[in-house]
Amino acid sequence: MARDPILTPRSEDFPQWYQDVVAKAELADNGPVRGTMVIRPYAYAIWERLQAELDRRIKDCGAANAYFPLFIPESYLRKEAEHVEGFSPELAVVTHGGGQELAEPVVVRPTSETIINSYFAKWVQSHRDLPLLINQWANVVRWELRPRLFLRTTEFLWQEGHTAHATEDDAHRYAVRILHEVYEDVMVNLLAVPVRVDRKTERERFAGATSSWTCEGTMGDGKALQMATSHELGQNFARAFGTQYQSEDGSLVHVWQTSWGATTRLLGALVLAHGDDAGLRLPPAIAPVQVAVVLVRDEADAGAQAAAIAAELVAGGHRVRLDDRVATSFGRRAVEWELKGVPVRVEVGPRDLARGQVTLVSRHDGTKTAIGVAEVAARVAQALAAAQTALLAQATDVREARTVDVATVDEAAEAGQTGFARLPWAAVGPAGEARLADSGVSIRCLQRPDGGLAPPGHDADLVAYAARAY
Amino acid sequence: MARDPILTPRSEDFPQWYQDVVAKAELADNGPVRGTMVIRPYAYAIWERLQAELDRRIKDCGAANAYFPLFIPESYLRKEAEHVEGFSPELAVVTHGGGQELAEPVVVRPTSETIINSYFAKWVQSHRDLPLLINQWANVVRWELRPRLFLRTTEFLWQEGHTAHATEDDAHRYAVRILHEVYEDVMVNLLAVPVRVDRKTERERFAGATSSWTCEGTMGDGKALQMATSHELGQNFARAFGTQYQSEDGSLVHVWQTSWGATTRLLGALVLAHGDDAGLRLPPAIAPVQVAVVLVRDEADAGAQAAAIAAELVAGGHRVRLDDRVATSFGRRAVEWELKGVPVRVEVGPRDLARGQVTLVSRHDGTKTAIGVAEVAARVAQALAAAQTALLAQATDVREARTVDVATVDEAAEAGQTGFARLPWAAVGPAGEARLADSGVSIRCLQRPDGGLAPPGHDADLVAYAARAY
Repeated sequence: MARDPILTPRSEDFPQWYQDVVAKAELADNGPVRGTMVIRPYAYAIWERLQAELDRRIKDCGAANAYFPLFIPESYLRKEAEHVEGFSPELAVVTHGGGQELAEPVVVRPTSETIINSYFAKWVQSHRDLPLLINQWANVVRWELRPRLFLRTTEFLWQEGHTAHATEDDAHRYAVRILHEVYEDVMVNLLAVPVRVDRKTERERFAGATSSWTCEGTMGDGKALQMATSHELGQNFARAFGTQYQSEDGSLVHVWQTSWGATTRLLGALVLAHGDDAGLRLPPAIAPVQVAVVLVRDEADAGAQAAAIAAELVAGGHRVRLDDRVATSFGRRAVEWELKGVPVRVEVGPRDLARGQVTLVSRHDGTKTAIGVAEVAARVAQALAAAQTALLAQATDVREARTVDVATVDEAAEAGQTGFARLPWAAVGPAGEARLADSGVSIRCLQRPDGGLAPPGHDADLVAYAARAY
Repeated sequence: MARDPILTPRSEDFPQWYQDVVAKAELADNGPVRGTMVIRPYAYAIWERLQAELDRRIKDCGAANAYFPLFIPESYLRKEAEHVEGFSPELAVVTHGGGQELAEPVVVRPTSETIINSYFAKWVQSHRDLPLLINQWANVVRWELRPRLFLRTTEFLWQEGHTAHATEDDAHRYAVRILHEVYEDVMVNLLAVPVRVDRKTERERFAGATSSWTCEGTMGDGKALQMATSHELGQNFARAFGTQYQSEDGSLVHVWQTSWGATTRLLGALVLAHGDDAGLRLPPAIAPVQVAVVLVRDEADAGAQAAAIAAELVAGGHRVRLDDRVATSFGRRAVEWELKGVPVRVEVGPRDLARGQVTLVSRHDGTKTAIGVAEVAARVAQALAAAQTALLAQATDVREARTVDVATVDEAAEAGQTGFARLPWAAVGPAGEARLADSGVSIRCLQRPDGGLAPPGHDADLVAYAARAY
């Protein structure tokens, strides 16, 4: 089937290919205010599934959802020194409300540590109130000078968790639990993106945190994408806001806190990690449409058979779309389903049906197989399971192929241009990290040699991963 | 059981009672910026259920979710004359972003007709693109000078639907379909609040609409609460933004549009419509906790029995909380569950258990019944169903008792102080409506004498409902 070149090939111009996919698969548009975005229905449907999966795991970790205001008095941000320094350049400031100039300007939340702590300080009285485990689904604004749809936008959607604990150890264990049981699980098992899970360097950690933990993905071009982070805040915000509890011995103690978030940039990760020159390739676990039943031509009883197959697949628990738009050419519709990354197509045409068959097409590897009508349900289920597994395996292969062991900062600066450089953190250090930054490369995470979590405050013998990042 | 007076009695000071319930049931707090609010976990859990129920019905009506930017260029609002006039006094304006003064100030969305139309104008080309049915879950900001938690807040959460249709009739039918199949159904069958469903007067309609349709509830004090609205926008925004489609005969036609929304004020409606002097009374269909299994004292095997009863009720599909906090007095915990409006309590104590019994307490009427342990599942299911029915019946009784037939504007101004006045619209008219406004009374809706929808543009023979409103 002849096809127009719809997308810029990845090998030619990867950033342009990304923009093409986002536009042609109808994922997002630029907003009128620089850096803002419109999330179109198809991408929003992916986000809704992602929200539901994250939300379920967050609740399984004991946190409850709440909602805090969009507007934060400017003075709140100034209470934690590192925090205000980190966020000041990115703030959107409201100076007028209700037709009047405001006495104190308010900022549109870039994140909610400050305003949430001002309530935690009221709500937490006793050790019996701890741990206090809160999550919020919200929009936040960080003014973005080099915006890219999903990846860097002035406004984005996210969840932000905020917790208060009686001890540093309890806060640490919770931050790491979220990292693994919520984020890593969703990235790997749902989005089929392998991630390196470990600690950020001091330079890269969140403004106001004592330790930041991250899930770092490898994209199709070898660049890193920070896919979610979980922070230990120590007692920094608790001291700034006076969030204290009365311990069992009656003394007042500042709480130990965490915060953690994942954003709509994950929609960009799906494009960057799995996309190919024909468009998106969605893992079945997250795809809004898992199976497109495509009627080739409405001849004989093909239309009725296609509808019956779609109904059978719906009954089997799959997310199915029946495409009977026969006024549009079959080729154009096939291209559209490929662009949108629907994992499996079942093509139903009179010629195949005459032999009792339909054609099953797997998006992830392009295979087309003639199968009997009676075996559609079983074969589709197999194909979906295979697609989920194959996409993770392919992304893992890309990650391994793009990772090289090096010994020096100079080598890391070079290798980091096209993938991840792995080297001893002892060979880098804060000074080497600053030199790497001159080449656009950053340390994405620090890991123990055995792959285990690097405990906070212990930097000896760690392995550093260096890469360019989105 | 002796109890402190926790809430101001409704008969003494209804507004203060409302504030007390919101605070003591831990529903919401005031935000630091005037008019903003913190939605606490218990209220947010109600909102999540409400969102899910509205969302399912919206999708059943064919609309898809999407997300449009928070920030709207000021110039967009000016494109539709009535719209900007209506919203200008309520806008929050961002003048600085990323450390710079902005060339054009941006407003924080008070509603999204303008920005969404700027995209509809791009997305709609042909009659085949219609109807275009979009919904958005978002926060919006309307600067509020007399804020009241949930009911009038500077920032609130809502869904806003926006649709484009080929014909006026199709737009009308969709606006009315949403009104009945989404809003009325949720209000009556889920929230147990009877609503008058009909058309707004010209004075009360949405800024930029040609017709506004409303669900008007009656609160416990006889005041009206506008619980959701659905608007026909005619071609007003389509003309302002150039949203046109090519019809089958090739001519360019402006689309006909609707918009419709429901907000977090519905959480306030639940308090105002069903609350009593002991706190909230939640309809079981919306209650985050339907059954509290309260362990009285952990003696003999009471703790194990309470846990077993809770597990049995969970298995029966109910939303259950086991309260085994025996370190806190039983009386205090009972008060707390009453405050929070949990529909049914199962009190499990060693004395009852010795007789093979537990005590079932229905929140809506306070009845306490000793029941056999073996019949808990059946009796709880009955009690929940009875509570849902009784709350709607009680709210309907209040509505009828608070509605009086009158003949003149003066009588309506008086009767409207304590409830709804019903009178012929011919006896009011725009001039009478202005006079009513001097008494703080407004026309809440216009209805046909037989209760049917009053067709747009036909005001003869209509019945008007006049009341004070939140």
